[in-house]
Amino acid sequence: MSWNTFGRSLRFTTWGESHGPALGAVVDGCPPGLALDEAAIQPFLDARRPGTSKFTTQRKEPDEVRILSGTFEGKTTGTPISLMIENVDQRSKDYSEVAKAYRPGHADYAYDAKYGFRDYRGGGRSSARETAARVAAGAVARLVIPEVKITAYVCEIGGDAIDREAFDAEQIGQNPFFCPDAWAAKRWEKLVDDARLDGSSLGAVVECVAEGVPAGWGAPIYAKLDADLASGMMGINAVKAVEIGTGFAAARLRGEQNADPMRPGAEGPEFLANNAGGIAGGISTGQPVVVRVAFKPTSSILIAQETVTREGEATELATKGRHDPCVGIRGTPVVAAMMALVLADHKLLHRAQCG
Amino acid sequence: MSWNTFGRSLRFTTWGESHGPALGAVVDGCPPGLALDEAAIQPFLDARRPGTSKFTTQRKEPDEVRILSGTFEGKTTGTPISLMIENVDQRSKDYSEVAKAYRPGHADYAYDAKYGFRDYRGGGRSSARETAARVAAGAVARLVIPEVKITAYVCEIGGDAIDREAFDAEQIGQNPFFCPDAWAAKRWEKLVDDARLDGSSLGAVVECVAEGVPAGWGAPIYAKLDADLASGMMGINAVKAVEIGTGFAAARLRGEQNADPMRPGAEGPEFLANNAGGIAGGISTGQPVVVRVAFKPTSSILIAQETVTREGEATELATKGRHDPCVGIRGTPVVAAMMALVLADHKLLHRAQCG
Amino acid sequence: MSWNTFGRSLRFTTWGESHGPALGAVVDGCPPGLALDEAAIQPFLDARRPGTSKFTTQRKEPDEVRILSGTFEGKTTGTPISLMIENVDQRSKDYSEVAKAYRPGHADYAYDAKYGFRDYRGGGRSSARETAARVAAGAVARLVIPEVKITAYVCEIGGDAIDREAFDAEQIGQNPFFCPDAWAAKRWEKLVDDARLDGSSLGAVVECVAEGVPAGWGAPIYAKLDADLASGMMGINAVKAVEIGTGFAAARLRGEQNADPMRPGAEGPEFLANNAGGIAGGISTGQPVVVRVAFKPTSSILIAQETVTREGEATELATKGRHDPCVGIRGTPVVAAMMALVLADHKLLHRAQCG
Amino acid sequence: MSWNTFGRSLRFTTWGESHGPALGAVVDGCPPGLALDEAAIQPFLDARRPGTSKFTTQRKEPDEVRILSGTFEGKTTGTPISLMIENVDQRSKDYSEVAKAYRPGHADYAYDAKYGFRDYRGGGRSSARETAARVAAGAVARLVIPEVKITAYVCEIGGDAIDREAFDAEQIGQNPFFCPDAWAAKRWEKLVDDARLDGSSLGAVVECVAEGVPAGWGAPIYAKLDADLASGMMGINAVKAVEIGTGFAAARLRGEQNADPMRPGAEGPEFLANNAGGIAGGISTGQPVVVRVAFKPTSSILIAQETVTREGEATELATKGRHDPCVGIRGTPVVAAMMALVLADHKLLHRAQCG
Repeated sequence: MSWNTFGRSLRFTTWGESHGPALGAVVDGCPPGLALDEAAIQPFLDARRPGTSKFTTQRKEPDEVRILSGTFEGKTTGTPISLMIENVDQRSKDYSEVAKAYRPGHADYAYDAKYGFRDYRGGGRSSARETAARVAAGAVARLVIPEVKITAYVCEIGGDAIDREAFDAEQIGQNPFFCPDAWAAKRWEKLVDDARLDGSSLGAVVECVAEGVPAGWGAPIYAKLDADLASGMMGINAVKAVEIGTGFAAARLRGEQNADPMRPGAEGPEFLANNAGGIAGGISTGQPVVVRVAFKPTSSILIAQETVTREGEATELATKGRHDPCVGIRGTPVVAAMMALVLADHKLLHRAQCG
Repeated sequence: MSWNTFGRSLRFTTWGESHGPALGAVVDGCPPGLALDEAAIQPFLDARRPGTSKFTTQRKEPDEVRILSGTFEGKTTGTPISLMIENVDQRSKDYSEVAKAYRPGHADYAYDAKYGFRDYRGGGRSSARETAARVAAGAVARLVIPEVKITAYVCEIGGDAIDREAFDAEQIGQNPFFCPDAWAAKRWEKLVDDARLDGSSLGAVVECVAEGVPAGWGAPIYAKLDADLASGMMGINAVKAVEIGTGFAAARLRGEQNADPMRPGAEGPEFLANNAGGIAGGISTGQPVVVRVAFKPTSSILIAQETVTREGEATELATKGRHDPCVGIRGTPVVAAMMALVLADHKLLHRAQCG
Repeated sequence: MSWNTFGRSLRFTTWGESHGPALGAVVDGCPPGLALDEAAIQPFLDARRPGTSKFTTQRKEPDEVRILSGTFEGKTTGTPISLMIENVDQRSKDYSEVAKAYRPGHADYAYDAKYGFRDYRGGGRSSARETAARVAAGAVARLVIPEVKITAYVCEIGGDAIDREAFDAEQIGQNPFFCPDAWAAKRWEKLVDDARLDGSSLGAVVECVAEGVPAGWGAPIYAKLDADLASGMMGINAVKAVEIGTGFAAARLRGEQNADPMRPGAEGPEFLANNAGGIAGGISTGQPVVVRVAFKPTSSILIAQETVTREGEATELATKGRHDPCVGIRGTPVVAAMMALVLADHKLLHRAQCG
Repeated sequence: MSWNTFGRSLRFTTWGESHGPALGAVVDGCPPGLALDEAAIQPFLDARRPGTSKFTTQRKEPDEVRILSGTFEGKTTGTPISLMIENVDQRSKDYSEVAKAYRPGHADYAYDAKYGFRDYRGGGRSSARETAARVAAGAVARLVIPEVKITAYVCEIGGDAIDREAFDAEQIGQNPFFCPDAWAAKRWEKLVDDARLDGSSLGAVVECVAEGVPAGWGAPIYAKLDADLASGMMGINAVKAVEIGTGFAAARLRGEQNADPMRPGAEGPEFLANNAGGIAGGISTGQPVVVRVAFKPTSSILIAQETVTREGEATELATKGRHDPCVGIRGTPVVAAMMALVLADHKLLHRAQCG
């Protein structure tokens, strides 16, 4: 069956298709009394909004959010918060090609196999436009965890990584790549533009760090904080891998290299390293929570590829239309939103059990 | 709050601690009429069982499973299946050191921070002994998906990877490492033994392939097949990263390299590649489902490390006791079990919605 | 925490307040390929619509539903179906009295105690206007169970019951009371009008029968069909009691009187009675499913009652505004909707486990 | 699918059949640090235990509970609590009759229709023996809500009700009927014994009152406190009706009669009546929570009834074996347990959202 709800205590349900009249999210379980209006959500949507540079899709969507329920006199009431974003630029293009044949790398074939047919306009429900609803929900989640500071950025595009020594958080908002390394951002301009002009696309790695998470959040065994983060991140469109802390590289370390020794500190124990990425046994340790996420290159490319029609005939397909040359870029605010949603949920879960 | 249940349609709940009288699983939602007795489960537990070689912990546990409910005359009845495994080798060692100080890399500190205290005997609930219950549950799940063949193996230990050209599935059961490359298995003998003698430990990468999964399993958006696999795998003890198909490497490919083109085949469309790892848009494509999982090196090592006591005093701790020098090895049957549990759940979920 | 989602396999989430801009439901898990447009939903909303006679509230709401997602070319796609109903007649009355003091019998005090404050305009989220969203969702659920015929009717108002001998299903839609007994409907005109003119209100009993439910739906132990019906019905505004089949009266029968003996029939076993109300052991028996629901008299009455202000001062309150003199009447389509939602959910649940 | 888990925050899963080796419950989400050992659970099981008088079944079960996990040094750890009760008196009787034909009023036919076959020994999973597991889980729940005092009693057997004026809570534990009216208890001795000697059975009404529940527990809209109570109670074996507060009788009152006016009191508002049964809008009001539950007469009676065989042939069946002449009596501790479980769950849910 379909399952469009995420979370256990703070839950959100999203709905909507790429080319329907609107899309939205219903956020349930939010504590009462938090200041919330559209202005608290819009900046996060703006960060994800398409059409802001030549490095993203040229679809023009203002992505203006409306709050339809759950607040009173500017504060959350504890009842479900309904958020709606209208689609305004569903271009009346000819979808006959996509309707007839499966785009390689897309969900077209899988959706048809599952449901018997699909809404092929812009990918329907499998479109990354759905992630606007998550970003809106994530903005609500942030209100639940004011003690946490979330930073997300692209740390690699097409195999070209940032220089960790050059990390400057200030840079993240100042280039079209959410890149914390000014010099890498410069290089990526040409890299992404070349791919775009080739009609191709690039993958990316996004890193997200949450500071201020206290020790003790996480619900062993099957709602471990890292398991929920893995689920949340892997479910983002185009994501193919998730790692926590040192991640895959930890598989190449020896025990004493990977350990995070502790020492007495001014305000409790201090860790001498954070290979664990802030999570041990599925529970936060008080260190920064660190997640890294791999986005594959956009599947929609202008380069023709072999595929089959719905009737099973061989054909070639080059995906026309407006697409991101690197979906990982606009995926960055989505990663941050999912981090917020998972952490807010676990804050409430922890409070339920441990008071 | 605690959350010891996994799954949506086929659900299982596990319970038990490393040094309690027993541990177990309750499997709920299993279809009726499937042949099930202890003999159908035991081989999977035997594969995970400790003490079978010098490359695993020397704790001796027969891990004999008992079915306490849910079957009648050798068949599942559709009611909950209660599985119990008694602990028999809880060595009466002195745990005073672990009780007093936090083992670096372990869940000790996080559990104390969350719950205020912890069962320190052998790690309590955070011990990988819990995974025996998952393996037992996984054996039941396999009965639900007879059309699927699951193969799991170690493809890398301590950075030393198998040669993909030398892959031989027959080898997997013939060495103590679940290694499909006979030559790599030879190398690993020395590698793992050296680490063990050093009092250190090694990480590993486990790969799991499920063949025979039909196109159409998966529940967009928030129970995508890959998201559920990511959750299931990341929740295994010592796992720090999960990737599907080409995974992180996909972030370094261009769109046309990463595409999985299709061609008409004898029994429907055929794919020319499987970078997607058998999942697109969160739904299975009919290709093999491929997951790769990174295990960190065992945290319990004999090499002393800096840490703090419960009272916050500085100390050093070398973890005595019996431990796996490379937890990834015995993690392999656990990865296979989680694959079976996720797939069986999604088979039923798909049937609910799509008939 | 808040919990605005109902169902396990076919799930729906509702949102919205009495005096917000809109209210709605998101229906998730619906099978694909079912014909669905607004016209399939509107008649059910029309049946519940206020202002259609002097026996209901005079608030004028067209309750026009819009489908915002989940359909394509007039058929459900298997993705979430977002339904929205705009509020148009939120009268700009003065709510200062209700804002300051608690209406006896209302949720005012309980909401304040829980959330610290409340949206007092028309009862906010605790208003029965929320049930419009359930009725819309219920119309979708009916598409999932075309084999089932649901009939709901009022069988008692203010203690005046219908004559079972005079039961005529045709009558139900022909009077403003959903009454299957023409003579009782006549009596109720005066009964309800008198209460209305007195500024008082009346309770009612609603009965709902579902025919065509096959034997085998229901999920023991904690999602028994009757338990889920009880939950769904008890959660309707103003409902204080639920019974299945013979219900409370069964507690006064002897075993042999209450038994439903069986006999061979043309198409399988036939029952000689239906004291069980079509459910045994939480599973449908193939007989009609019969539920009876008690609605208390509307709490909002013009007769002044003792109460306290938010500050705890003694006061008197007569609830002005537009209210139903007997909420049970308009509760009838809501009862039918909840029946449809529970049955559709259980049809899919059964299919998941038993194929 | 099967669904053997109840609750949202404090959850419990039960397993086991009437004639299997054991039955049990896994309680998940329990706060850490609560004192718990077998002695804290056993008295509740003893109250429900069979064979203690001639008014209950003569099956001899000590119902001794073992705690297999989730505690350490006598306190809950926050991890799942596994409770097991061994079956010891599964009499080796001949079940061939029950195996072949359906007992009227039982779940036999429905189970067969659902699952294709059934464990017919003593009713298998549909046996009320399952409720022992709930009672054990309920004992854990009580530790979570020490502020609440739960009292359950039989208020009517076979239509013979207690005299409310004669209510004496002290009496409840002093007769075999959990009867608070000494005189009624006397009458019931003969009433129940006569039914037993006739080979018949009687229904009963059980009332349960929870005092000390603070205002504010409950999770609108679909996990209202009364909806969850209705679900929990209706799911108890043989229960056919549930009412809150004045219940069905409220449908016969006028608005001003049913209102619960408020007045300033020493410690906040005081109610002048409790028709609402302590719940308004699905949220507790601070008044006693009052639930009334109807148990049908035991279906297993010695009087022969018409029925059909599995092959659909006509036959007659008189249920031999050991049965309660009035299941409502031993249902009383089960009702109390479900009350505790629902309230404990809602206490934690409330804490999650509202702190």
